[in-house]
Amino acid sequence: MATKVDFIVIGNELLNGKISDRNTQELAKILNSNHLTLNQVKIIGDNKDQFNQALKDSLISSNIVITSGGLGPTKDDLTKKMLGDYFNRPLQESSDALTLAQEIYTRRGREYDKMILPYHILPVDFISLNNPIGFAPGLFYKDQEKLIFSTPGVPSEFKSMVDQVIVPIIEKSFKREKNISQFTVRTWKVPESKIFSNEIDNTLWEKLSQFGEVSSLPHNFGVDIGVALEGSEFEINQKRRSLTSLITNSPISSYVWQFGNLSLSELIVKEATTKNLTIGFAESCTGGLCASMITDISGASKVFYGSVISYSNSVKIKSLQVKEETLTSYGAVSEQTALEMAMGAKAHLEVDIAISTTGIAGPLGGSKDKPVGTVGIGFSTSKESLSMSKIYHFQGTREVLKQRFANKALITLLELIRKH
Amino acid sequence: MATKVDFIVIGNELLNGKISDRNTQELAKILNSNHLTLNQVKIIGDNKDQFNQALKDSLISSNIVITSGGLGPTKDDLTKKMLGDYFNRPLQESSDALTLAQEIYTRRGREYDKMILPYHILPVDFISLNNPIGFAPGLFYKDQEKLIFSTPGVPSEFKSMVDQVIVPIIEKSFKREKNISQFTVRTWKVPESKIFSNEIDNTLWEKLSQFGEVSSLPHNFGVDIGVALEGSEFEINQKRRSLTSLITNSPISSYVWQFGNLSLSELIVKEATTKNLTIGFAESCTGGLCASMITDISGASKVFYGSVISYSNSVKIKSLQVKEETLTSYGAVSEQTALEMAMGAKAHLEVDIAISTTGIAGPLGGSKDKPVGTVGIGFSTSKESLSMSKIYHFQGTREVLKQRFANKALITLLELIRKH
Repeated sequence: MATKVDFIVIGNELLNGKISDRNTQELAKILNSNHLTLNQVKIIGDNKDQFNQALKDSLISSNIVITSGGLGPTKDDLTKKMLGDYFNRPLQESSDALTLAQEIYTRRGREYDKMILPYHILPVDFISLNNPIGFAPGLFYKDQEKLIFSTPGVPSEFKSMVDQVIVPIIEKSFKREKNISQFTVRTWKVPESKIFSNEIDNTLWEKLSQFGEVSSLPHNFGVDIGVALEGSEFEINQKRRSLTSLITNSPISSYVWQFGNLSLSELIVKEATTKNLTIGFAESCTGGLCASMITDISGASKVFYGSVISYSNSVKIKSLQVKEETLTSYGAVSEQTALEMAMGAKAHLEVDIAISTTGIAGPLGGSKDKPVGTVGIGFSTSKESLSMSKIYHFQGTREVLKQRFANKALITLLELIRKH
Repeated sequence: MATKVDFIVIGNELLNGKISDRNTQELAKILNSNHLTLNQVKIIGDNKDQFNQALKDSLISSNIVITSGGLGPTKDDLTKKMLGDYFNRPLQESSDALTLAQEIYTRRGREYDKMILPYHILPVDFISLNNPIGFAPGLFYKDQEKLIFSTPGVPSEFKSMVDQVIVPIIEKSFKREKNISQFTVRTWKVPESKIFSNEIDNTLWEKLSQFGEVSSLPHNFGVDIGVALEGSEFEINQKRRSLTSLITNSPISSYVWQFGNLSLSELIVKEATTKNLTIGFAESCTGGLCASMITDISGASKVFYGSVISYSNSVKIKSLQVKEETLTSYGAVSEQTALEMAMGAKAHLEVDIAISTTGIAGPLGGSKDKPVGTVGIGFSTSKESLSMSKIYHFQGTREVLKQRFANKALITLLELIRKH
């Protein structure tokens, strides 16, 4: 059996909508980059029957099981007890676990209190795992050939424990059989249904399939095509070159915006850095989302100077020199205002390219002429001193619209960087 | 059996780290507000064996199964075929499904093409479901007492289909047995391990348990305590009042920042609106995240005027009147710069309260004196013309630090609104 991992996420808070599971994606990324396979994930409540059933199934389908959640100090933290019961290992004090807990607390300037904290008590034969950035230690148990790990549910603690503690243990226990690598090409401005039809290329899927399992993933501004590659390092590189050439010679190539898997923001920071261009925004309806997406990227400070979030008209006038009569005659959501905002931002922030957004994210504020989902996107670039703006229409909830407006602004920015 | 829902999320892209599952939380919220229970969730690949196993288990543990993903037009969209095979229902053309598909396409200004699109073909006895905002219809099938629904995986389409199409069908099929409601109290500035110990209140858990199942959820700026309430509308209201009084008379009350379940941003917009206060930011290290969190809230425009994202020093000087000598003598990440940024933002944006952030989110840019995770938070408020700033230290990755810096800024803002 290939080295497969099942993941069991424990917590009522994930089933009543209070929080969303962010650990699955982090785990998937870490496993993927270590050539390990995430087989399946189960999200269950703080419930012993569900836990026993899930663990039993996972021990059949995979050779590694990771659980998250339920390791804290309160009464709803049941994982340790449930694991002990499942494997018939009673809870007892462990001197190794006590030493580790004391170390963790000392490292963070606190004292471990045996009377109120339970981290030195664990099932017989279980091993306590270091938590690099939190307090609650993880657990490790080996049952015949199967490895079982338990981690805290807090995403930052989960991630660092998997990355720094668990993956090294797995690497030591299992020898890698083959390399797995994903080839991704990202397209936009064409619907998924057309890509693989005779409107674009109805043999594309078959041609790609010769190299590995093909997938097609539509998202809110395009379609990503993936091919899962297997083989030696040399074979995988060879397949990558063949696939790139295949795509370049297919009619789909005019819709490709990236060979690779970077986000829009990552690509913008990368290409602006290469071309030595500085960028900025004037944001109304996106309310800081464009700037926040760019500043998520390490190294953004080399190219990103700033953004003027002008939610009120007074800030549009004062910071961006939008004319009062423009706002009165055309309204805040208009081509004219978007244009003046972009020009104002370019001058005020002193950047090579400025992008503006002004629109109606809703649910309130729409009208017949300008319904919710209307957005004006403007730009002003030092290349040929060109400034332009345009109105677009999108559909969705407030959250979705904010994201779609921001994506459109970043797409505009990337295209301008490429023309520079 | 109570009305329970199992959710099966289908897609390799969720297991290789390409995207994260956002549908579980949306589904949980919608079910919860309709007094339905999400029993468990499974995330599986585009794999027939996993699908059959998951569906079989879920049809035992719940009376409703919802699947998401794999309904699109490409060859990796296998859900329809897998469902048909599972229930022994061969695929065939359906005139109802064709009519619905044509309606959906017409509504969005396109023509449905039978030759390239598969939405008019579905398993015998299956019903095609309207997709309120996308193209791919959903599926509905009734197997004895069990209801099976399939939806697209795109989050916005998933949400609107569950909300507008699926929940009404469930409501018609099952009579509600009792009301379920969550009581939540949100605390901060106290670790989870102390809340239920003799340092704060070692009988709190037992006292709360008399009203329903208690849960404790630590997150990155506090601990939320929940109690699941059941009963008639009248009984639930009575329990809410008793719980509120119990908490108010417990030592934990001095750490409570909210009775209820609003986010920090929602509460800020709500309380600033009530007090008629205007707010703004000067953001460096948070790069627009504070502004974006506030503008996620509908109605934010009443109180939020804007934010100056001053990533570069030139913008700090020009827009916020930070003195060049302050930057030279103390550095961009300092109490002095944070203070001048907040004062500059208050004056420039003409708001009642301005908050500033300037720090090092990493992974690069740290030094011995100012390691990654250092942040200066400043404020300037019209109440007694007070301005102050302070340096804090946090740990985590770039993404985590940005979020922690922004949370700290919003906490500061909420406390200032409350003092106003």
